[in-house]
Amino acid sequence: MPDIECYTFKSEYLQHFIEEVFKHYGVPEADAQLASDVLITSDLRGIDSHGVARLHTYFGLLKAGRINPKPKIKILREKASVATVDGDNGLGLVIGPKANAIAMEKAEKVGSGWVSVCHTNHFGIAGYYPLQALKRDLIGWAMTNTTKIVAPLWGMERMLGTNPIAIAFPGLKEPPIVIDLATSVAAFGKVEIAKREQKTMPRGWCINDRGLETIYADEMIEGGALLPLGTDRERGGHKGYALSAMVDILSAVLSGANWGPFAPPFTLQQSMPERSVGKGIGHFFGAMQIDGFIEVDEFKRQIDDWIQTFRQTKAAPGTSGTIIPGDPERKAEQIRGEQGIPLLQPVIIDLLDISRQSGIPFKLNKAN
Amino acid sequence: MPDIECYTFKSEYLQHFIEEVFKHYGVPEADAQLASDVLITSDLRGIDSHGVARLHTYFGLLKAGRINPKPKIKILREKASVATVDGDNGLGLVIGPKANAIAMEKAEKVGSGWVSVCHTNHFGIAGYYPLQALKRDLIGWAMTNTTKIVAPLWGMERMLGTNPIAIAFPGLKEPPIVIDLATSVAAFGKVEIAKREQKTMPRGWCINDRGLETIYADEMIEGGALLPLGTDRERGGHKGYALSAMVDILSAVLSGANWGPFAPPFTLQQSMPERSVGKGIGHFFGAMQIDGFIEVDEFKRQIDDWIQTFRQTKAAPGTSGTIIPGDPERKAEQIRGEQGIPLLQPVIIDLLDISRQSGIPFKLNKAN
Repeated sequence: MPDIECYTFKSEYLQHFIEEVFKHYGVPEADAQLASDVLITSDLRGIDSHGVARLHTYFGLLKAGRINPKPKIKILREKASVATVDGDNGLGLVIGPKANAIAMEKAEKVGSGWVSVCHTNHFGIAGYYPLQALKRDLIGWAMTNTTKIVAPLWGMERMLGTNPIAIAFPGLKEPPIVIDLATSVAAFGKVEIAKREQKTMPRGWCINDRGLETIYADEMIEGGALLPLGTDRERGGHKGYALSAMVDILSAVLSGANWGPFAPPFTLQQSMPERSVGKGIGHFFGAMQIDGFIEVDEFKRQIDDWIQTFRQTKAAPGTSGTIIPGDPERKAEQIRGEQGIPLLQPVIIDLLDISRQSGIPFKLNKAN
Repeated sequence: MPDIECYTFKSEYLQHFIEEVFKHYGVPEADAQLASDVLITSDLRGIDSHGVARLHTYFGLLKAGRINPKPKIKILREKASVATVDGDNGLGLVIGPKANAIAMEKAEKVGSGWVSVCHTNHFGIAGYYPLQALKRDLIGWAMTNTTKIVAPLWGMERMLGTNPIAIAFPGLKEPPIVIDLATSVAAFGKVEIAKREQKTMPRGWCINDRGLETIYADEMIEGGALLPLGTDRERGGHKGYALSAMVDILSAVLSGANWGPFAPPFTLQQSMPERSVGKGIGHFFGAMQIDGFIEVDEFKRQIDDWIQTFRQTKAAPGTSGTIIPGDPERKAEQIRGEQGIPLLQPVIIDLLDISRQSGIPFKLNKAN
């Protein structure tokens, strides 16, 4: 594969491939469309770690029968503005959008809707879900617990996932504010990059298997852990830990899923937790009708003003100045929508492997 | 005042004094009771900065006519699970509990209730509100925006408050998990302590008026700013900024209050912002009925298990091991409930000044 680093792919081409792969393993067409939309949105928005790069893992789980391709979603409990959903061990990429839709429907009826989900699997980027809510003039929330990799403050074991929180607010003329953050100080993907590039990591990201701070990726990977947002006690590590705990409880305890260190792993290679305390992993979705609080256009005008005011913050020396949450992802989306999605060699090799095993064609076309 | 550092006061005595002060300045008895309950809860839980130490400021604002002692709360907009409340410029200590009660009532009817509040003032500790929800088997949320003191990432101006987030979850036999955190890396009170004790601060807390990191309290106080949770870009400062923005928007934009740098100041000494974009400051309350999601006792049993599991986390070297959010405050409450609340000399001087000006007796009894 010469010049492999230069290969970029049109998002439509990748999305079609993703959809065909899911269909091949028994996922109904409408569900495969949903799942491919979640994954490709991640690639378009520049979050390479959560998009098509993960297709091989989903593929492996489906092939091994660890994920149910035809889940029957069940509402276990319900009131006008809340519900608990059992995802029947389906793809999080399918269960997530459907549970999120239930939250949005409730919000349109009674002002807000909140749905906790058990018996589900990894749902892609948390930011995908509030983006759907924006289309309906709703403020959307999404959270999920994930496989353990983060140590709580003063602990030296992996006990929590990177447990993200996402929420978005629409502007009128300005683009929306889109918040999507992991509650760990850094993403595990960044540790992997440091390892690949043989570089040290910034202080405060990780501890090793003796519970001591480390700047070496290998030391974290071999039995260490990520630290929660804030890092140590002096700089608010207890706050990142508390936020991660909040996400864990709302997603997994409230729904009856596996919480904390018992969340099942995302890959076939990782071992299963020693104990099961519920079903699958958990998500938590929220939607609030802006109109239930304030006139929609008035809200959006104020958001425009908020954005313009914060953009005008005096810039700290050596920086380009304050940006608005969602700016980097929106810029990536513009560029990649026009120029295509660049994929790294290991990802392309994975996709070719899927193609070989499934018989679904995948061609290396030089897009630019 | 000899041995002034040793003076402790029974909480009932202090609470009665607070109540009388509010009544003296025209606050109706039931409201004065509410307000005194919020303040004394803070002192009991060891959060000295937000309790009776602030009475002199509330007293000053009431005396200057800057706060309405007899507010008529108005619901501006409402659906079954959401509402916007105008606090009529009352004490946040009164508007807060009443708006929180509206959220709780809605939760008991339709599963969840969410109330955004404008035209209000500082509401004490955010953790007070979810504690009320616990009494009714609800998961309570509270947020508020506050006077600007935090710089957004890559900015060098005060643009946001310390904007706290609180939420609590009940256990069955275990005490509840109570999360209450400011979205800044440290509280301004800690900068003041560093100044008083003539000590340097940890790196990452503050910048000076040139936008550069400083460890000197004076440099922060004279035109610098606190940093958001995470501190710099490498350690997730954009995440703390985004969380603070979220609190600001839910509390103030959604309700029609003053957001960001335009939130009015808490003390008479601070100057008013250059622009008004709404009414007062804003709060945001939420309540979710556990029963709407899962059987209440099952939830509480799982929370007990969660707590016990996290307490057993292997301790990092040099630490006493992982604690549960709310542990330190609960311990303070036990001790102070028995032994009384210790007050520092400057606080006692303030209370004696209030006593002198209002004629309400305040006696220095050595409680132990």
